[in-house]
Amino acid sequence: MQEKQKNKATSNNPIGIFDSGFGGLTVMSAINKALPLENLIYFGDSAHVPYGAKSKNAIIKFSKKIVSFLIKNRVKMIVVACNTASALALSVLQKTFKSPVIGVIEPGSKAAVSASKNKKIGVIGTDGTINSKSYPKEINKISKSDVYQQSCPLFVPLVEEGWVEGEIADSIVKKYVEPLLSKNIDTLILGCTHYPFLRKTLEKNLGKGVILVDSAKATAQEVKNVLKQKSLLASGKNKGFLKFYVSDNPEKFQAIGNRFFSKRVSRVKKIEMD
Amino acid sequence: MQEKQKNKATSNNPIGIFDSGFGGLTVMSAINKALPLENLIYFGDSAHVPYGAKSKNAIIKFSKKIVSFLIKNRVKMIVVACNTASALALSVLQKTFKSPVIGVIEPGSKAAVSASKNKKIGVIGTDGTINSKSYPKEINKISKSDVYQQSCPLFVPLVEEGWVEGEIADSIVKKYVEPLLSKNIDTLILGCTHYPFLRKTLEKNLGKGVILVDSAKATAQEVKNVLKQKSLLASGKNKGFLKFYVSDNPEKFQAIGNRFFSKRVSRVKKIEMD
Repeated sequence: MQEKQKNKATSNNPIGIFDSGFGGLTVMSAINKALPLENLIYFGDSAHVPYGAKSKNAIIKFSKKIVSFLIKNRVKMIVVACNTASALALSVLQKTFKSPVIGVIEPGSKAAVSASKNKKIGVIGTDGTINSKSYPKEINKISKSDVYQQSCPLFVPLVEEGWVEGEIADSIVKKYVEPLLSKNIDTLILGCTHYPFLRKTLEKNLGKGVILVDSAKATAQEVKNVLKQKSLLASGKNKGFLKFYVSDNPEKFQAIGNRFFSKRVSRVKKIEMD
Repeated sequence: MQEKQKNKATSNNPIGIFDSGFGGLTVMSAINKALPLENLIYFGDSAHVPYGAKSKNAIIKFSKKIVSFLIKNRVKMIVVACNTASALALSVLQKTFKSPVIGVIEPGSKAAVSASKNKKIGVIGTDGTINSKSYPKEINKISKSDVYQQSCPLFVPLVEEGWVEGEIADSIVKKYVEPLLSKNIDTLILGCTHYPFLRKTLEKNLGKGVILVDSAKATAQEVKNVLKQKSLLASGKNKGFLKFYVSDNPEKFQAIGNRFFSKRVSRVKKIEMD
């Protein structure tokens, strides 16, 4: 009974979610939809954004500081809602911290393997994610497949500029996906949390034969599995709270966040990380 | 005689140059060309790159740390070879540190005023530079002019991807410069150290009537003036040394730097800034 009460107390602790910027809000949104009772704390590392082209050591250092901050805020588990940080820092975070830490690469890979029929899977992401080869490694742990990768450094600024459709978006998307199409892929992993905002233009340029896999939903499902297994799912009747922290520019995060997040992004607080 | 010797000693101290990344190498290159005897120390803040969309407070914090590092390395003057940092941090740096600190905005503005005949001047730059209105303020201190601004967030990633010519570069450049062309500008300030790499495509889309002003040369001239005035110009017969420091990813800096710098970028050292 005592043990159960202890669990009950911990189960209402929040889930910590972090990303280099606001892209991870798509993952937070999916978690909030799947688990509306959970309290969620988001951290966007806007002082160091973007992570895509930074070194492994730097990403590990930034990620450790953020996870320490989240743990001080008594989170019961941590979601690395950033593909680059999942690719480069997840295993170190799992070794360093006791709380469960999950990333977006394993759930995304599982979803892609389920979706693909011809076992030719494409992956698009930042330089950091692509160079780490995390997706090909993870996919081939699950099922032997041909994995074709392409880094797309212009996609993040394109999304942030708001140019997600039109002539310019078309020509950039076309240039990046052509080498993948020539490999006859039937599934494409959107290996960066910004990329789902380019979904329409991607679909237009890829044609109907290619299924797009966005890790957000799959990751939310994985969060549910982990919490269930550890008897840490939030209970009660009240909807969970949503809190937002950033390392720079809270006003900008709030403005852009409201374009990208399904709920209102408000009262964003700035935390000095250096 | 003693006083002269003292000056002579200080005159061989290096000049410190910094930028958020490698763009400032264009300024270093111009200084090296104009003043080949000077020792030059470059710092690229690759852990925080890009500065363009970060807050004023963050840029001031990063810049102060870098200048402290350069002063520890006994520099005799500091060049803020980054438009965003010049726009947002220069006055604070000048108040905080005793050494002379110059930016790229005043020299660029002077050059533009000299070049313009119809006093209709365009400025392109990052969000930070444009929102600060530093160029319009500086230009109007020198001579009453109509200044039209445009922020171009996709130019930096375009240059870093190496897509400086071709269909994609053309369509992005066209979209950004059209509103300026409609104002009948005869001079355009390239208000970001990355932009000179897009010179050909800019010229093509602007037509022959528009003069492009790149702050690098004008800034090198300003460095010469300041050192001359303070009797701090390096003397002797030997060419100065060139040293490179970054806050992340020295390998990447070296690789990209060699594409952009007129001399060989080698032995890049990483310095932890946080």
